[in-house]
Amino acid sequence: MSTDWDRVLAPRSVALIGATGRADNPMARPLRWLTGRGFAGRVHPVNPKYAELGGVPCVSSLAEIDGGVDLALALVPAERAAAAVTEAGAAGAAAVVVFASGFAEVGDEGRALQDELVAAARAAGTRVLGPNCQGLYDARSRLFATFTGAGERPLTGSSGIAYVGQSGAIGGSVLDVAAERGLDLSAWVSTGNEADVSLTEIGRHLVADPEITVLTVYAESLPDPDDYAALAAEARVHGTALVVLRSGRSAAGRRAAVSHTGAMLGDDTAFRLVSRRYGVVLVDDVEELLAAATMLRGRHGPAGRAVGLVTSSGGAGILAADRASEAGLTVPELTAETQEKLARLVPAFGAVANPVDVTAQLFNDGGEFGEVCGIVRADASVDAVLVLLTMLVGETAMALARDLAATVAEQGPDAPPVAVVWMAGEDGTAPARALLREAGIPVFSSIALAVRVLDAVAAPLGAAPADVRAADPGPGDGWALLDALGVRRPASVRSSDAAADVEALGGVAVLKAEGLDHKTEACAVRLGVTTADAASVHAELSALPGVTGVLVQEQVPAGVELLVAVDGGRDGWPPVLTVGHGGTATEVHRDVVHALAPVTPETARAMLQSLRCWPLLAGHRGAPGVDVEAAVDAVVRLSRASAVPGLGELEVNPLLLLPRARVSGVAPQTLNVRNATRSISRHAGGAVAVDVLRTEQ
Amino acid sequence: MSTDWDRVLAPRSVALIGATGRADNPMARPLRWLTGRGFAGRVHPVNPKYAELGGVPCVSSLAEIDGGVDLALALVPAERAAAAVTEAGAAGAAAVVVFASGFAEVGDEGRALQDELVAAARAAGTRVLGPNCQGLYDARSRLFATFTGAGERPLTGSSGIAYVGQSGAIGGSVLDVAAERGLDLSAWVSTGNEADVSLTEIGRHLVADPEITVLTVYAESLPDPDDYAALAAEARVHGTALVVLRSGRSAAGRRAAVSHTGAMLGDDTAFRLVSRRYGVVLVDDVEELLAAATMLRGRHGPAGRAVGLVTSSGGAGILAADRASEAGLTVPELTAETQEKLARLVPAFGAVANPVDVTAQLFNDGGEFGEVCGIVRADASVDAVLVLLTMLVGETAMALARDLAATVAEQGPDAPPVAVVWMAGEDGTAPARALLREAGIPVFSSIALAVRVLDAVAAPLGAAPADVRAADPGPGDGWALLDALGVRRPASVRSSDAAADVEALGGVAVLKAEGLDHKTEACAVRLGVTTADAASVHAELSALPGVTGVLVQEQVPAGVELLVAVDGGRDGWPPVLTVGHGGTATEVHRDVVHALAPVTPETARAMLQSLRCWPLLAGHRGAPGVDVEAAVDAVVRLSRASAVPGLGELEVNPLLLLPRARVSGVAPQTLNVRNATRSISRHAGGAVAVDVLRTEQ
Repeated sequence: MSTDWDRVLAPRSVALIGATGRADNPMARPLRWLTGRGFAGRVHPVNPKYAELGGVPCVSSLAEIDGGVDLALALVPAERAAAAVTEAGAAGAAAVVVFASGFAEVGDEGRALQDELVAAARAAGTRVLGPNCQGLYDARSRLFATFTGAGERPLTGSSGIAYVGQSGAIGGSVLDVAAERGLDLSAWVSTGNEADVSLTEIGRHLVADPEITVLTVYAESLPDPDDYAALAAEARVHGTALVVLRSGRSAAGRRAAVSHTGAMLGDDTAFRLVSRRYGVVLVDDVEELLAAATMLRGRHGPAGRAVGLVTSSGGAGILAADRASEAGLTVPELTAETQEKLARLVPAFGAVANPVDVTAQLFNDGGEFGEVCGIVRADASVDAVLVLLTMLVGETAMALARDLAATVAEQGPDAPPVAVVWMAGEDGTAPARALLREAGIPVFSSIALAVRVLDAVAAPLGAAPADVRAADPGPGDGWALLDALGVRRPASVRSSDAAADVEALGGVAVLKAEGLDHKTEACAVRLGVTTADAASVHAELSALPGVTGVLVQEQVPAGVELLVAVDGGRDGWPPVLTVGHGGTATEVHRDVVHALAPVTPETARAMLQSLRCWPLLAGHRGAPGVDVEAAVDAVVRLSRASAVPGLGELEVNPLLLLPRARVSGVAPQTLNVRNATRSISRHAGGAVAVDVLRTEQ
Repeated sequence: MSTDWDRVLAPRSVALIGATGRADNPMARPLRWLTGRGFAGRVHPVNPKYAELGGVPCVSSLAEIDGGVDLALALVPAERAAAAVTEAGAAGAAAVVVFASGFAEVGDEGRALQDELVAAARAAGTRVLGPNCQGLYDARSRLFATFTGAGERPLTGSSGIAYVGQSGAIGGSVLDVAAERGLDLSAWVSTGNEADVSLTEIGRHLVADPEITVLTVYAESLPDPDDYAALAAEARVHGTALVVLRSGRSAAGRRAAVSHTGAMLGDDTAFRLVSRRYGVVLVDDVEELLAAATMLRGRHGPAGRAVGLVTSSGGAGILAADRASEAGLTVPELTAETQEKLARLVPAFGAVANPVDVTAQLFNDGGEFGEVCGIVRADASVDAVLVLLTMLVGETAMALARDLAATVAEQGPDAPPVAVVWMAGEDGTAPARALLREAGIPVFSSIALAVRVLDAVAAPLGAAPADVRAADPGPGDGWALLDALGVRRPASVRSSDAAADVEALGGVAVLKAEGLDHKTEACAVRLGVTTADAASVHAELSALPGVTGVLVQEQVPAGVELLVAVDGGRDGWPPVLTVGHGGTATEVHRDVVHALAPVTPETARAMLQSLRCWPLLAGHRGAPGVDVEAAVDAVVRLSRASAVPGLGELEVNPLLLLPRARVSGVAPQTLNVRNATRSISRHAGGAVAVDVLRTEQ
């Protein structure tokens, strides 16, 4: 059903089902706010016990309302909510807000009530926001259909920042703290249990709103990853910044075993990768959420990770450089031209490289602080400017704020973003902070927070996915899957005449027993078996308990061992490719990177280069490097396993990367990438161990 | 010279040399503050141009002051400062504060002026604070001998927190922000260029002050590590918490090459290790400095890393659990007894495990919030309690604050510390926040900050050093050093008759060319040389250009390779032991830990266990573990190299750890730890390459 969200956020008429007469009850707030704050639509309290409430005539039922309603608020207990939904639907409501708790969050009985609620909405052709939510508001239409205490504040909706999230409590904090800082939110929605309407659905409406430049999201769960991706994609299309605070990340990650690739992924890897692909800014608490939203109100973050620092105190500049460096931001030296210009303005005992230390003297002398910041901002090597202010208060503070705001306005919004850290009490700096904020310049009190937010908003975007397909090799056959993907593997035959098979492979081969789970531990893999020994080793392996057959395989020379794994996607999240330092010590190395699968050669190469073990591939201390292009090709091909319908997981460990040239002077191998050891392909949940090959010198 | 700091911080008389009549000059502040804020001592402006200043009679020179002075403030330009110091010394001043800049910070000419200043002080028997500093205050004696703008605030010194640091600007920020939060600092000292008096010297006086419970320090440099260690040790003796913000950490660390052990140390490793030994709390910005100081006002931090979370909102609890887990704090389940007690107070749809979610309902019902927090605090599995509050404002806020403060007071200061994160605007919660702060309960606005500070204050203390000594083996001889330390090494002989030497070592040995820098790369190391081949390999190696001799060495079997290095201490910092995953891929693994050297067996074992590669030592996927006790013994012995006078650096890579039992079934080795490959010992800066031995299977 397509919902007209404008009827919900700017309704012509609102019914309050079960409106209360007890003024001290939080549930009395919606009626008070709808009647006293400029809402232009009609307001209908529905309660047979009263003739009027808050000066507005009551009706006994929604049927009495001429012209029906656009939005209904169900201010009734859980057990009466479904009936209210039915009634509201009949009156034409586009949506019903159900505030009551006592639904799915309290167990099975509540879940049944919630199912009833949804069924009632479907039957009545309406939608349900909640239950167990705190409602919504749109400050532009003056619709305050919520009971959040933070709604008591005068809210003009001037910030262009909106909030949507499951938690009304977190939403209340966001709203309250933002409003106190002069950023009152334009729209605000608490989705509660999300029995019907999800935060992603409302979010998609909000990001398309031209007055909203930043959507902040608090998500305890994102049950439909496709919806989340769609929200992120649409935000990008509309040029709306999306800032997401996702909670509940720690426990599951902790429980999962580190030794398994899935566990190393962490349970929010796919979420993070999808977010990065669409340029979503991820934050870790409410303060960061607000700080990032403030930074992004100008609609664009830094184009890169280079920060220009301008400071009134050497100490603050050093601290900021320390924190920026630790966060992986760069603090580049400014160009000679910039430094020359700065030298004319900055006192001789200051500094003009980066950090630029204007010294307190500049302010005593009434120097051109705005111009200094403007010169740094205009330097081509700088993607963002961070201004550090210490004890500059009162009139000095106002003067520098005016000066800085004027310069920033003059240079226009396309120049690198500017943010200020003011390390002085609020009381001496409040008007100056407000002036800067009104000019779109965010003001922080903490260097660490400002740097964390710069890092978050400057995160690089992921590459778009390549359009590739892989044939479905059929369930359960890992070797066939590798063949279908075009990844070379060692010649292998289930042997009956071991001596002949070894001889066919060049006189030396690997013999391994099949049917055992831990082949290495059971000594069921024998390397360097010669034609002469083949028969006796075959007999020995065949005699091991539980063995179902013996494979004879080509012996692959030693090389750099990679782990390459494709997780077919879980709970609706897209497939994730993991590439890491492989071999038996994968858990020891903990050297893995992730990307959404499939990947392009460029992404594969970047992944390999970002591994700690990259020097082993590139050539390290006299050891030759591997054939990197062959490795890239193999990773790209393996990543295409993500297109196999129903793929559970593909893990190749090790993928052996051979040197471009052997140390010993042997000619370069023509076949430079081989997969080996463990290849597991799970289709639709079934695990099929395919092969194990140990290769050692 | 022993200085009576009480004469400086609570002087009977103060002279202001060059006191100014211009009221708008910041330099007029000290006189105004000394005459108008209750300072009990005598105040003498010294300026021949005035008969009186600020209602106080002026003198023309210090000689006119009857009874002399305890403290002098030099409010004169740099070039007149030395003369002022001489005059003050003659008048008996214990110290002179020199505010002027234009000394060492501006280059050679200034450095000469600064040297003059120090010479004048020495000659006159007085001390200099500064130059280029912002002075000092002691709120208890009402001595405000500073011009920091933050000094305008009414300061009672009630917080028990003091500040000392080189930067007056950072100090001003600390003072201003703390005061705005109701924590005005008891004493405050800016040491500037530290020509004479260092922050560690004043710090040692302040930590001994019984009214000061926390000393906060901002340090751009700590030129005398022994002084810093003495300050840290004395703080511990007096039970005063020491919180240090050290700046300038990033640049040097970045410049140094990653491939060298010294670089991996990072240039503040020794600083961090010394700090940890004495329980110093290290922080990363001014906000954290203040937050940590607030947390430690009760004189003790958490005894461990387990946090009990109590929240008014499920969402805030999850966020706090996420952040705590990520910071390495634990969020343990509460005991059954605790949960049972809580279940009687917490609404059924809340939670009683950890986080404890009391729900907003508890406050609507006037529930026992303080009691809930008290029960969690009394749980034996909890080391600290973090309370998360969302939109609880106004009277509700005051009531819960009173309730919580009363419970905390009742349980007494020895129970685990309690902190609050209040995620709501200041305006609706200010009185409640103030009430909590007065009760010694720190209040934060950010979950992330609160968790970072809990992490910082709960950091484990380092073990005390073992009392060990090593003999000095004489300069430049790495092998002899290993022998002196009692670490076994492969048999090795400079060979003239290679075949005989190889035969003596069992018929297979390693031959290596001496005199080359990069032996592996030059193919100058030959493994598995048999008696038969020895002569020809010897001849081949001898023919390499630059070779000075050929060593024949015992061939050591493969094992787990460790890096063990002892840095003899730099710039006065104590020696640091580095233990890590060794071999040629050390830079790839980046798996190292540090401790102050020497170490006890307990510390050595803990270091090995904290390495990522520990599973390789302990036994991993069927591979046998190494003889860990032998490894511990070798690490302990090598760490004792720190006692060698003048040691530059000792690096052993790899220290080969052999299996307790070989896979192949060979009997366990009796010699289980061998050092090999690269052993460099530098004495007093000279580098002597001692040996290289490659061992491979």
